[in-house]
Amino acid sequence: MKYSKLFPKTQKASPAGAESVNSQLLTRAGFIHQEMAGVYSFLPLGWRVLNKISDIVREEMTAVGGQEIVMPALHPGDNWKKTGRFDSFDVLFKLKGAQDSDFVLGPTHEEIIYPLAAEFVSSYRDLPLALYQIQIKFRNELRAKAGLLRGREFLMKDLYSFHTSDEDRNKYYEKVREAYLKIFKRIGLPVVETKAGGGTFSDISQEFQTLTPSGEDIVYICKKCSHAINTEIYDNSGKCPECGGEVDEEKAIEVANIFPLKSAFAETFKLTFQDEKGEEQIVSAGCYGLGISRVMGTIVEVFNDEKGIIWPETVAPYQVHLVGLDLEDKEIKAKVEDVYNQLQAAGIEVLYDDRDARAGEKFADADLIGIPTRIVVSKKTGEKIEVKKRNEKETEFMSLKTLLAKIK
Amino acid sequence: MKYSKLFPKTQKASPAGAESVNSQLLTRAGFIHQEMAGVYSFLPLGWRVLNKISDIVREEMTAVGGQEIVMPALHPGDNWKKTGRFDSFDVLFKLKGAQDSDFVLGPTHEEIIYPLAAEFVSSYRDLPLALYQIQIKFRNELRAKAGLLRGREFLMKDLYSFHTSDEDRNKYYEKVREAYLKIFKRIGLPVVETKAGGGTFSDISQEFQTLTPSGEDIVYICKKCSHAINTEIYDNSGKCPECGGEVDEEKAIEVANIFPLKSAFAETFKLTFQDEKGEEQIVSAGCYGLGISRVMGTIVEVFNDEKGIIWPETVAPYQVHLVGLDLEDKEIKAKVEDVYNQLQAAGIEVLYDDRDARAGEKFADADLIGIPTRIVVSKKTGEKIEVKKRNEKETEFMSLKTLLAKIK
Repeated sequence: MKYSKLFPKTQKASPAGAESVNSQLLTRAGFIHQEMAGVYSFLPLGWRVLNKISDIVREEMTAVGGQEIVMPALHPGDNWKKTGRFDSFDVLFKLKGAQDSDFVLGPTHEEIIYPLAAEFVSSYRDLPLALYQIQIKFRNELRAKAGLLRGREFLMKDLYSFHTSDEDRNKYYEKVREAYLKIFKRIGLPVVETKAGGGTFSDISQEFQTLTPSGEDIVYICKKCSHAINTEIYDNSGKCPECGGEVDEEKAIEVANIFPLKSAFAETFKLTFQDEKGEEQIVSAGCYGLGISRVMGTIVEVFNDEKGIIWPETVAPYQVHLVGLDLEDKEIKAKVEDVYNQLQAAGIEVLYDDRDARAGEKFADADLIGIPTRIVVSKKTGEKIEVKKRNEKETEFMSLKTLLAKIK
Repeated sequence: MKYSKLFPKTQKASPAGAESVNSQLLTRAGFIHQEMAGVYSFLPLGWRVLNKISDIVREEMTAVGGQEIVMPALHPGDNWKKTGRFDSFDVLFKLKGAQDSDFVLGPTHEEIIYPLAAEFVSSYRDLPLALYQIQIKFRNELRAKAGLLRGREFLMKDLYSFHTSDEDRNKYYEKVREAYLKIFKRIGLPVVETKAGGGTFSDISQEFQTLTPSGEDIVYICKKCSHAINTEIYDNSGKCPECGGEVDEEKAIEVANIFPLKSAFAETFKLTFQDEKGEEQIVSAGCYGLGISRVMGTIVEVFNDEKGIIWPETVAPYQVHLVGLDLEDKEIKAKVEDVYNQLQAAGIEVLYDDRDARAGEKFADADLIGIPTRIVVSKKTGEKIEVKKRNEKETEFMSLKTLLAKIK
């Protein structure tokens, strides 16, 4: 992609109203645009990051047998009245449809997937079943000032699994837990597994928390055994419930969670199956959320410096930021274009700064955008290419061949 | 994918409330599930089709220089008040946000993209600019009984282009027109280019209509010169406005449209640029819609028989439907599994019916689901594989090697 064509260009000043580091940097670098508090457009660079995160999540959900579907954003209000959450669910968007019927904008999808599963699951032979989606969700937040960390509209992956027994569910729960750890490892985002309360529909749950001073959550981590718990189950004793050791209080962002669900939803929507003896049993279920857009915001909160964003390689919008300098020199220009074409031909994703602008401006933009590898072709670089990692100070000079071998 | 694991299985009877052919067949075959009138979940098979259509559209939009973004579903009501469409737009979903602010669920995105473009476009150097998204849209339809043809929530591609002059816009308009024809050719869906009125914001527009008795639109096609117009600009004379020839009246489904936009939106949102002389000019724009989920429904309306759906190859959920018979015979079972593995290893998408079910049931399901190539491995087929095209009666027997060469 030629930077001269990319929409939009970077901005020098932080936009009004962007209070969080992630919204400031992502907006200035041209990844997102705020449409109102908690509601963003994802611009070309941001769309690419969102998709890279989604694709990693998709691969790992498929690997644990999840089948991808997409459920609607618009829910019939009746389903929410059946579970009692039409009135009790915090920050629920409600609206009126034709014939004055009640609709809900889905903040989660139990009210859709349970009746859906109930329609098709009748025998133990239909189980286990794991369905997931990557879909926008809505919450009517009173306060939405944390950029992508707490939106009124946001992108989430939610997986739901259905089983013949709690034992089978618990085994699957463990598989998804491992899949989550793999996802965050691939994305390059450190997480702490944290025990949490279960709310109304679960006894206990597990959160995946990224420690950072900008987090809105609090987690308590044992200095001795590293066991982590959230505020719901912390008893204020200052001691670890596992080993009695002292705990540290840390701020964190919840990027994912997993819930073994109690039988309330299954009972409401009659999600039952006939077991091998022909007896009717209630289906056991789990729910596994992961905030795709929140992960994007969290990465920026954690990986940045005074110059801009520092993307992990697997989710960077492009692999290489090619800075062409001295482009008024036809020979140099031809060389830069050749490097650009050869990198692309090798299947490498390149953002090529082809503008007629000063070196300082181009380097500042490259640092702000945060692509992990920056390469420079100029009069000074001669036959070689100057290569610099975004998170390192030193530059190296190498041939295109060596560079290609390194990146591949 | 093993059919025994696929969610859900086919249904024999049409679901209550499914009045249209597309919703009947897609529901029975397990592609979609109606959550309420005009609102559907896309199940694994349906999700795959939707993605294949989206990917073809994405490729052709990128080829004409479109940059992909994603704008929110939730719009600030103020933007819609500025254009007057908060009150005038038919079937607009409105809702209240925090602090009692007005929100709109986007049925189209001019109210978002114009202010967005206005923020970044200031000079002729920033133009032309083409941005598109594939995003869910909402319409509070009073009557939503046509399955995927007219939904309350539906998936659309919308492209917006911005230019320094109407001439430049018209040239681009022509490029998108050709891209649309290419898309429909690739998808395998016949369309008639139809002249139409422009509504409030355009003088004239062009529709891409698929002729079918189940269409809700009427188009008039000249018997002599094939020129087609819609009801808005038809003068009831029975004559073609181009050549005076007699016209046929046909029912049709509008699958896409393109609009050269008048300057109203640009004026409202101050989308202007400085030309080469430093004078401020209004930006010229075009809007190009294509209904992704509607295209899916239209394909089913057009390509079906008494047995089920007949997918065009490029958008079928899988390329091959492998029916294994006599699976209680261990040798046969091993052979089927080997064929399944070899097809997959060759990069071919296979739905493998591995169930312990009768041949008749498996064939009926294959016909209903409508994957273009059905292959059978059984006692009877011996060393060969039986191959049948969904839209042909005859079967052929060939080796796996020949089959692989044919599909590739």
